[in-house]
Amino acid sequence: MSKPYSRLDINNAAVLLVDHQAGLLSLVRDFDPDRFRNNVLAVADLAAYFQLPTILTTSFEEGPNGPLIPELKEKFPEAPYIARPGQINAWDNPDFVAAVKATGRRQLIIAGVVTEVCVAFPALSAIEEGFEVFAVTDASGTFNEVVRDAAWNRIAAAGVQMMTWFAVACELHRDWRRDVEGLATLLSNHIPDYRNLMTSYAATKGAIPSGKPAA
Amino acid sequence: MSKPYSRLDINNAAVLLVDHQAGLLSLVRDFDPDRFRNNVLAVADLAAYFQLPTILTTSFEEGPNGPLIPELKEKFPEAPYIARPGQINAWDNPDFVAAVKATGRRQLIIAGVVTEVCVAFPALSAIEEGFEVFAVTDASGTFNEVVRDAAWNRIAAAGVQMMTWFAVACELHRDWRRDVEGLATLLSNHIPDYRNLMTSYAATKGAIPSGKPAA
Amino acid sequence: MSKPYSRLDINNAAVLLVDHQAGLLSLVRDFDPDRFRNNVLAVADLAAYFQLPTILTTSFEEGPNGPLIPELKEKFPEAPYIARPGQINAWDNPDFVAAVKATGRRQLIIAGVVTEVCVAFPALSAIEEGFEVFAVTDASGTFNEVVRDAAWNRIAAAGVQMMTWFAVACELHRDWRRDVEGLATLLSNHIPDYRNLMTSYAATKGAIPSGKPAA
Amino acid sequence: MSKPYSRLDINNAAVLLVDHQAGLLSLVRDFDPDRFRNNVLAVADLAAYFQLPTILTTSFEEGPNGPLIPELKEKFPEAPYIARPGQINAWDNPDFVAAVKATGRRQLIIAGVVTEVCVAFPALSAIEEGFEVFAVTDASGTFNEVVRDAAWNRIAAAGVQMMTWFAVACELHRDWRRDVEGLATLLSNHIPDYRNLMTSYAATKGAIPSGKPAA
Amino acid sequence: MSKPYSRLDINNAAVLLVDHQAGLLSLVRDFDPDRFRNNVLAVADLAAYFQLPTILTTSFEEGPNGPLIPELKEKFPEAPYIARPGQINAWDNPDFVAAVKATGRRQLIIAGVVTEVCVAFPALSAIEEGFEVFAVTDASGTFNEVVRDAAWNRIAAAGVQMMTWFAVACELHRDWRRDVEGLATLLSNHIPDYRNLMTSYAATKGAIPSGKPAA
Amino acid sequence: MSKPYSRLDINNAAVLLVDHQAGLLSLVRDFDPDRFRNNVLAVADLAAYFQLPTILTTSFEEGPNGPLIPELKEKFPEAPYIARPGQINAWDNPDFVAAVKATGRRQLIIAGVVTEVCVAFPALSAIEEGFEVFAVTDASGTFNEVVRDAAWNRIAAAGVQMMTWFAVACELHRDWRRDVEGLATLLSNHIPDYRNLMTSYAATKGAIPSGKPAA
Amino acid sequence: MSKPYSRLDINNAAVLLVDHQAGLLSLVRDFDPDRFRNNVLAVADLAAYFQLPTILTTSFEEGPNGPLIPELKEKFPEAPYIARPGQINAWDNPDFVAAVKATGRRQLIIAGVVTEVCVAFPALSAIEEGFEVFAVTDASGTFNEVVRDAAWNRIAAAGVQMMTWFAVACELHRDWRRDVEGLATLLSNHIPDYRNLMTSYAATKGAIPSGKPAA
Amino acid sequence: MSKPYSRLDINNAAVLLVDHQAGLLSLVRDFDPDRFRNNVLAVADLAAYFQLPTILTTSFEEGPNGPLIPELKEKFPEAPYIARPGQINAWDNPDFVAAVKATGRRQLIIAGVVTEVCVAFPALSAIEEGFEVFAVTDASGTFNEVVRDAAWNRIAAAGVQMMTWFAVACELHRDWRRDVEGLATLLSNHIPDYRNLMTSYAATKGAIPSGKPAA
Repeated sequence: MSKPYSRLDINNAAVLLVDHQAGLLSLVRDFDPDRFRNNVLAVADLAAYFQLPTILTTSFEEGPNGPLIPELKEKFPEAPYIARPGQINAWDNPDFVAAVKATGRRQLIIAGVVTEVCVAFPALSAIEEGFEVFAVTDASGTFNEVVRDAAWNRIAAAGVQMMTWFAVACELHRDWRRDVEGLATLLSNHIPDYRNLMTSYAATKGAIPSGKPAA
Repeated sequence: MSKPYSRLDINNAAVLLVDHQAGLLSLVRDFDPDRFRNNVLAVADLAAYFQLPTILTTSFEEGPNGPLIPELKEKFPEAPYIARPGQINAWDNPDFVAAVKATGRRQLIIAGVVTEVCVAFPALSAIEEGFEVFAVTDASGTFNEVVRDAAWNRIAAAGVQMMTWFAVACELHRDWRRDVEGLATLLSNHIPDYRNLMTSYAATKGAIPSGKPAA
Repeated sequence: MSKPYSRLDINNAAVLLVDHQAGLLSLVRDFDPDRFRNNVLAVADLAAYFQLPTILTTSFEEGPNGPLIPELKEKFPEAPYIARPGQINAWDNPDFVAAVKATGRRQLIIAGVVTEVCVAFPALSAIEEGFEVFAVTDASGTFNEVVRDAAWNRIAAAGVQMMTWFAVACELHRDWRRDVEGLATLLSNHIPDYRNLMTSYAATKGAIPSGKPAA
Repeated sequence: MSKPYSRLDINNAAVLLVDHQAGLLSLVRDFDPDRFRNNVLAVADLAAYFQLPTILTTSFEEGPNGPLIPELKEKFPEAPYIARPGQINAWDNPDFVAAVKATGRRQLIIAGVVTEVCVAFPALSAIEEGFEVFAVTDASGTFNEVVRDAAWNRIAAAGVQMMTWFAVACELHRDWRRDVEGLATLLSNHIPDYRNLMTSYAATKGAIPSGKPAA
Repeated sequence: MSKPYSRLDINNAAVLLVDHQAGLLSLVRDFDPDRFRNNVLAVADLAAYFQLPTILTTSFEEGPNGPLIPELKEKFPEAPYIARPGQINAWDNPDFVAAVKATGRRQLIIAGVVTEVCVAFPALSAIEEGFEVFAVTDASGTFNEVVRDAAWNRIAAAGVQMMTWFAVACELHRDWRRDVEGLATLLSNHIPDYRNLMTSYAATKGAIPSGKPAA
Repeated sequence: MSKPYSRLDINNAAVLLVDHQAGLLSLVRDFDPDRFRNNVLAVADLAAYFQLPTILTTSFEEGPNGPLIPELKEKFPEAPYIARPGQINAWDNPDFVAAVKATGRRQLIIAGVVTEVCVAFPALSAIEEGFEVFAVTDASGTFNEVVRDAAWNRIAAAGVQMMTWFAVACELHRDWRRDVEGLATLLSNHIPDYRNLMTSYAATKGAIPSGKPAA
Repeated sequence: MSKPYSRLDINNAAVLLVDHQAGLLSLVRDFDPDRFRNNVLAVADLAAYFQLPTILTTSFEEGPNGPLIPELKEKFPEAPYIARPGQINAWDNPDFVAAVKATGRRQLIIAGVVTEVCVAFPALSAIEEGFEVFAVTDASGTFNEVVRDAAWNRIAAAGVQMMTWFAVACELHRDWRRDVEGLATLLSNHIPDYRNLMTSYAATKGAIPSGKPAA
Repeated sequence: MSKPYSRLDINNAAVLLVDHQAGLLSLVRDFDPDRFRNNVLAVADLAAYFQLPTILTTSFEEGPNGPLIPELKEKFPEAPYIARPGQINAWDNPDFVAAVKATGRRQLIIAGVVTEVCVAFPALSAIEEGFEVFAVTDASGTFNEVVRDAAWNRIAAAGVQMMTWFAVACELHRDWRRDVEGLATLLSNHIPDYRNLMTSYAATKGAIPSGKPAA
């Protein structure tokens, strides 16, 4: 009854960021905007931190869908950037698939907008071709919770693994001793509660001076 | 470990609209009425837009269940229309099954009211006969969320794919270049946020004159 | 890829009502009390209406768990009634299993309180012995939604089918022509919205006189 | 700073039931249907139990709004029954106001569908004429929670007191010794949790025999 | 203790539609987009139906805020249209105030985006100048529910009356006999549940033919 | 019936930030952490942007409550910083009151953690002394929504005005022409949806190059 | 415009605990049971800690309502304990009122089950007699949130101040220096998040040894 | 179609408590703190009650993550306690795996913080090695419900069984007669509703004296 643990491996994983465009983001309503923005930037930060091959793709940037958010462009200036001329499923675009295959990686970490289309379609295509696929559920957004539930149901049934950016980061990192400060910085920048823990800890240790009460 | 992608194909799909009747719609409480009405009309519009064979069926229109909503009748004047004399599961009605088989399609896109009966029963029957079945979850309504969850659980376990009207439309369309204007119109008519994106885009491009401030 | 439709059959189904006791019902908080009471009585009514073999069982009625609610006792005066002396899983009680097997039925419709124990344990035991098991999710209650989700997850993974009382009734009835009035009465008594549809319909048909406005 | 307690008085209160019609009830979505039906019947039962003067009124029963639900007609066969020919605000109908004034009561307990119209309008009119007004919030329903919140806000600002059927019953009854059995029956019929308490209590006292465990 | 009923009067009311612009609408997350769009169009329809003086105003249409949604422009081609050059509070714009005063009306029905600014600021200014102000809460949207609650709290404390478009329509109409068909059409176009009631009623009366069952 | 509009005035307002300490922030559960952090930083940014006198205060920084979050210290290096030696109500600390009075301002904008104590207590004290008080509800957090509701209820009843950081910013700014770029930057930094609108607008205007599709 | 701050005073406050009986507690569904139990015990602990005069009262302990929960009896062995023979409003019981007046206190802190009756009725009576009344909203429970909202609305309109146990404790304590350890213990025992802050702080200070990692 | 019932066995189960540390607990927001604390202590109590081998492990106790909560240390003074020097997945720590294997048990009951990492990773590793794994879902917490859903989805897909502490206790106990008092005490200490049932039952039986009403 044992089942192999399909575990993210820093040497075998690549990140696909699909259609995080300024216009399309206004469609995302299954997450609070502050949280969603934070999650998307966190995925980008972890991809950069772990130096994972990362591929950007967009759909019709020049129309209402709007441009890729500038933060992603700036974070990955050298990444393959596939502006699809029309294909809704990124996997239907030969340049995109070529870029994926060029990484040599077999584990694909996908986030995108909207979940049931921009994430689900390439995820299902990649599964069909034998890749392991990990959806970053909290950096993938859509119209509302019911739509999200349907999307998750469909891709999970096909074998996609449901992850979150924090789970991805931890599974890649594996051991704090690999780089304590690096991981702590990543967490501090994207988890306010963790940042507060670190602040309080540092203060108690005396690293941060506190205000001295007078009267 | 690869798994084939069971993907909607415009040449192999048919749409089944089951019991969207004026009386039965008052039972639907797992969706806000404005959203649900919009979703049902969106499914009808996409079926017409993609020229998919579409079959209408109802249960006891002359009683409390009420008539099929007029918009569906008007949208599909030539479609097979099976007013079932009593069968709760549409698949138990030979005319309905004959109409389905007459389409020659093997992918069935089903929406209906209520989900756990009017969608689930024919979906399970169709799966048994080897069809691929796609439930349009957001155009299928029922009494409350708990009932919906049970319905989804049962049919997903049997292999029904959970979709939404937007995912169906995108998976059928595949490439914006197939007909940019057609798809955009469909989206604009049923996704207010997308309509707004298009409006703002057109205005910025100068296609829509704006009010000139005076004082 | 076809999968058989495990469909409820009026000649092959039995109903197991587990621990709907007055004390234990105070633990149920994943349903509003008005709705839950209605659902439990609806299951009892449908079991009686379809003349399904029905088995009652309780746990420690004489202690804090309290007695079986009187409505169930009155509805099934002749049913096997297994007051378990201690077994938490009803299937561990030989009398209970004997009563189930004495029905000769292979499809078991189970409802109970609380879901993750009184429903889940006998459901898993029955699955193991090759029965088909259908959980009546909306007549089975527990502490809160998180507990419910875990319970559903576990039993669905084992092959239990998630149903609701309305889906059970419709799958058993199959065709309105079997007994229009009987099913309509069942629905009217337990679905206020359906009752209203029937009332309005009858009034419009002239069967119910309305108040005549005067001024 | 003391403020007089405007307290319901069994000798000074009357009940107004406005537009609980079968069609209009399908509009009510700020309450679960089982709960709402129970609450409406509870108000009717308490009005009858406390023998309060009760007035029924409806709007366009012969059209889509549907007839007053039969249970209310049956409960109050002798009550004034004002089928309004068109006035939306019941207080605009002279027969209705005359019926109210004929009771001689100065405390008006109002419930109706929908809250922001059928309850709010006559409530505001009655306040203007110096009546004390008590809205039975849980027997008054409307389209959704946002609409309800606006309705409550407007009438509370005008001095309407927000009540529930249980609070009304308790404030009228004042002392259990007035009629222990009568109040207990009312509560048992409309509060499942209280019914269960009574059942368990009776069983522990030995009034209800429990199943004797065998094996 | 009586309090005058500040009641909308068709001869004394005007409608102010503030900043329903395509860009700003993407900020609205306290309502589902389908519902909100419907509510805004309903307010526009009722203003036109009751022939109330209506004033449109916008903020920076040529920038990211986007143009007024085209449906409003088309509905009120002759209405005063104040494109404010910078004032956030519309009441700070002299043209706007002049347009309001030119109507001669003392009851102002306001809807806008976002609630706590575009509705609240002019509402508070108008109250200060002695107008009666009615906020159309369900056609006024903002970032989330917490922001909405704060906005409602502030303006209600200042005496603004909380309404919804349906309550406004009913309070203005007062008597169905004024124009049964007109009001019914307004409701049918914006309340799906009411539309269904009308459809079922007409069908039962025989006005709509239903499908005849065959087998 | 007119009521004066108590309107924030950039020349008469001061900001009080009470106990936004790293430890205490872990108690805040009526807001998502990402949203709350954003709101607190937004209040700080607006105080700095509008150059409002700002006062910081903390409670027991050296113990479990933890230090003031570093971002606030850095933002206001010259602000009065009252580390209270024990007073729970900041207004009980003479240094704090002296600092408030030294600003010469009569409008106090307060945010703090937790709402019902650190905001409510000084707010009630300040009201008593004749200040106008504006609570920044979305930069004030507490244990859960029920606690928040009670806190809002109490202070609103005392005359505190319920605001949000965005409403405060808009009421202070009054006219976009005062500084279009400054306000736009503030909004872009703290409202992801607005940032996206600006990005899309700039891109459509050609200010941001988009990816050119190739195949 | 200034308004006096009605502030809890340790020398002028008394605590009234009304009908926290084992049976009635099963009716409370507007709070999670773990939270509600904690809140009730917290009120009891704070009453004891601040040595406030405390009065217990119950309704029909010997029937289905069940006994006062043992923890309250044990906490206040010497407190007046009024087992009311039938009065629903505790203030209708002369012994109860006498006990209240015997305390000499003019500020009454009330918690009870259920809110709209057992809290609201005596609160309104006490207000009428000129007491200041503070409802402990989170130690007062009822059937559901809608009922709670109505109850809060009614009593707040009469001048009752909405508090929570934590706000009561802080307003009474006023200054941590009064007894740092005592207040900290109270908070640690009833606020898990605060307990964790204290644990982490103590550990960082070295007061708690941590596990030493080995491999 | 029968499927074996993977049932917890008191002689084959061990308990793994992973990273319930004071700092990390501040990250848990998918449960109310009172409920979560109760659930964690309940798991500890049941492990002790059933004398299951129990293993404690922590991650970086000396840093911001904070120490293991003292209650767990005290409850299991003799248990293996693995303070991991850096491994995020406890199963990557050889001492931890050795401790697990030393128990000789093949059924692992896991609870931890946060769910998607500290529970999911070792659960997936243990499944791979052929253990049966049972996640205690309600004693495992994480950032929010969306993260939890993803975590449950992933581990359930791998064969982990979703349990709750109550289900675990009942499945281990099997028969009340094994030790009525022991199980009842466990339930009474962690289920307030059950405690109330027991209190009321005892009182009705006369075991608890109630207050005698006087007037």
